[in-house]
Amino acid sequence: MGRRYDTISFLSDYGTDDEFVGVVKSVVRELAPHATVVDLTHGIAPFDVRAGSLALARSIGYVASGVVLAVVDPGVGTSRRGVAIEVADGEGVLVGPDNGLLAPAVAMAGGAGRAVSLTSAEHRLESPGATFDGRDVFGPAAAHLCNGVDLTELGEAVDADLLFPGVVPLPQIDDSTVIAQALWTDRFGNVQLNVGPDDLPPGFAETVELRFSAPADPTGGTTRVASRVGSFAEVATGRLGLVVDSSGLLAVVMNQRSAADELGVEDGDQVVVTALGEGAGDDPAGSRVSVDLDLGRRRRG
Amino acid sequence: MGRRYDTISFLSDYGTDDEFVGVVKSVVRELAPHATVVDLTHGIAPFDVRAGSLALARSIGYVASGVVLAVVDPGVGTSRRGVAIEVADGEGVLVGPDNGLLAPAVAMAGGAGRAVSLTSAEHRLESPGATFDGRDVFGPAAAHLCNGVDLTELGEAVDADLLFPGVVPLPQIDDSTVIAQALWTDRFGNVQLNVGPDDLPPGFAETVELRFSAPADPTGGTTRVASRVGSFAEVATGRLGLVVDSSGLLAVVMNQRSAADELGVEDGDQVVVTALGEGAGDDPAGSRVSVDLDLGRRRRG
Amino acid sequence: MGRRYDTISFLSDYGTDDEFVGVVKSVVRELAPHATVVDLTHGIAPFDVRAGSLALARSIGYVASGVVLAVVDPGVGTSRRGVAIEVADGEGVLVGPDNGLLAPAVAMAGGAGRAVSLTSAEHRLESPGATFDGRDVFGPAAAHLCNGVDLTELGEAVDADLLFPGVVPLPQIDDSTVIAQALWTDRFGNVQLNVGPDDLPPGFAETVELRFSAPADPTGGTTRVASRVGSFAEVATGRLGLVVDSSGLLAVVMNQRSAADELGVEDGDQVVVTALGEGAGDDPAGSRVSVDLDLGRRRRG
Repeated sequence: MGRRYDTISFLSDYGTDDEFVGVVKSVVRELAPHATVVDLTHGIAPFDVRAGSLALARSIGYVASGVVLAVVDPGVGTSRRGVAIEVADGEGVLVGPDNGLLAPAVAMAGGAGRAVSLTSAEHRLESPGATFDGRDVFGPAAAHLCNGVDLTELGEAVDADLLFPGVVPLPQIDDSTVIAQALWTDRFGNVQLNVGPDDLPPGFAETVELRFSAPADPTGGTTRVASRVGSFAEVATGRLGLVVDSSGLLAVVMNQRSAADELGVEDGDQVVVTALGEGAGDDPAGSRVSVDLDLGRRRRG
Repeated sequence: MGRRYDTISFLSDYGTDDEFVGVVKSVVRELAPHATVVDLTHGIAPFDVRAGSLALARSIGYVASGVVLAVVDPGVGTSRRGVAIEVADGEGVLVGPDNGLLAPAVAMAGGAGRAVSLTSAEHRLESPGATFDGRDVFGPAAAHLCNGVDLTELGEAVDADLLFPGVVPLPQIDDSTVIAQALWTDRFGNVQLNVGPDDLPPGFAETVELRFSAPADPTGGTTRVASRVGSFAEVATGRLGLVVDSSGLLAVVMNQRSAADELGVEDGDQVVVTALGEGAGDDPAGSRVSVDLDLGRRRRG
Repeated sequence: MGRRYDTISFLSDYGTDDEFVGVVKSVVRELAPHATVVDLTHGIAPFDVRAGSLALARSIGYVASGVVLAVVDPGVGTSRRGVAIEVADGEGVLVGPDNGLLAPAVAMAGGAGRAVSLTSAEHRLESPGATFDGRDVFGPAAAHLCNGVDLTELGEAVDADLLFPGVVPLPQIDDSTVIAQALWTDRFGNVQLNVGPDDLPPGFAETVELRFSAPADPTGGTTRVASRVGSFAEVATGRLGLVVDSSGLLAVVMNQRSAADELGVEDGDQVVVTALGEGAGDDPAGSRVSVDLDLGRRRRG
């Protein structure tokens, strides 16, 4: 027997207007009635594996010990694998499609331990169609893990090195300029960049120029000035601020308004940050071309 | 005393932007703290009893044993009855307005056993108005059932044959043509039809013509070709597929795009499926005019 | 040790498209695994403290004993206090920012008992940024309270009289006219007014004229006739009704249609109610200028 878990943290692109989420939770409830399901979010845009993987990475340091069930799965019904991946010596198991969705979270949790492909027929539900693996494959696997079924009973072992990698964009950084990317726009219109404050060269300016452009139109876009601030309320009306957000990354924000709407910026857009005024160019260390993306705290234990 | 239940599966058209759902769950929490509420969905369009009844029918084979609480209730405050209906020898009880919402699910669960009208004043909350029976009547009834209150204590017996019937459209089927209806468009834009693969005549073509038209404009609409496929990923870019979906019904789909948006189709539209090419017209059995609608698996036990 | 609680009722403007709510619930799950979180709603419009305070006031009479966690917090990261406020002799504790969000609910629960500012560093999470106090301050405080940590351990005592007051608009009432405000438009388009049926002068007409106008344009707007009704179904097609809603307040409604859409009315608009026909002006008591706003039942116990 494996470890018994009490919590399933559930993320998907199912939305909540249909009964998809409710049916998966019903299946879990019937198979593992002792387990509590914590919904992380089901509002990932349909098919958006990248957005799902980033939301999971932002969450992973906070999820309770147990199973993480994540389903953003445009390849459902094809030969793409479903997998279960242990992390942190079995403190947690991530369950979902092997399409990159889980990879950043696995890395942040310290890397993959044992992993299996979810091929065991007796641990699935029989189904009339092959379009709803959340209900028929992933949800049951999560429930069986909660019941103490060992990972190895769920299917064949998979070499962790052969799991589908995640793609997280790295910024390009030199003394006075950072070429970053808009990772995520939240409900409030705050635009998270793939740059943390420690990634900026020492002495980088408190006031910066931001140039936003779509991938398809890198020479177009909008240029604005922003100041480093500690909270939304420090941003003057109609101005932009650059705050260290709850993931520990820099975010472009306004005060009680949507920066994303103001700027017309979308996830994946390029954001060039250029130092303005005092402090710029103080770093003799020269340019760096890659950094570790550090989304908030790492898992405990 | 009746049977004691641990799970309430909850569906409504309340949405989650207001506190309606939260207040119903608060009432349940106070009355029956041991019960777990599983939200099926609260995204049913306001007043859309038909859509609610179909979502409940798609879910019923998967809900955990216990109470199903369903509220789509345009007649709240009128003389329409509130009811509780036992199914599967008391393994489950469905609670909600007697307006057809529950009927298809009751049928799929094997038909109604005992049923009562929720008239017992002591099992309701007193209320300043008569507009929120989910909070004042249905939620309390579900909680009392979880506590082991017998169905008969909740009100007067109702003859199951006199319950409001559900309306599920049946397709018209002959050798080479099926006149179907768009039952449901999900978040991903997949359009579920009221036809299962076994309802098609043997040898029905793998390639079909689909003609979509609104009820108000049966001669207008759009005509497209679709191929039978096993998964979304088998559909070529920009083309339509016909897949067996998670309910075991045929659905018109695209690959990582919304077929409903592409086609402008809405729930309730007519969809005429005509066999194209080889395989059409091979069935000597002639036409059939009605089929049983079979939404996924039936209840266990 | 303080009292141990089992339920956290959670309201916010976080929405559910991001993982904010899920992360807060994950933190609670890890700190106080025995606690059940009941989501009241997370659909409060971003930054709308007024709307959040009204939704909380409508809910408070129904929430289960325990902790109420409420976060609508445009001032996050500033010097505005986070607070925990006992009500009903410790039967409940409200946790959130001290910006008026909690005040109407506290008043409806009988007024504040002990209160503290959430300054204890050991009862917060360390955080890279100061933008997510729901995760780092309020959620942990709610969880610690559930575990039996006494209120006084969470920070310095605050004089309840110095808590930020709530702002609830009072109507102006005389014999034949009530100058009211649109408090809330629900999912169904029902427009709740800040007037209860008992606030109307005795004998006030069953048929009334309603004049709706935006605060910025008090002389513009729309004038319509409405009849007092007991349920939505009593309203004739295309007509307006005035119903006693589930909070015990008057609401402008239509039958299976959105009155708010029909009228173009928004929260905060002025609504002048004038008696028409028989019954108008029968009250010799003259005008009244303020009433207590009574949102549904008060807390038990």
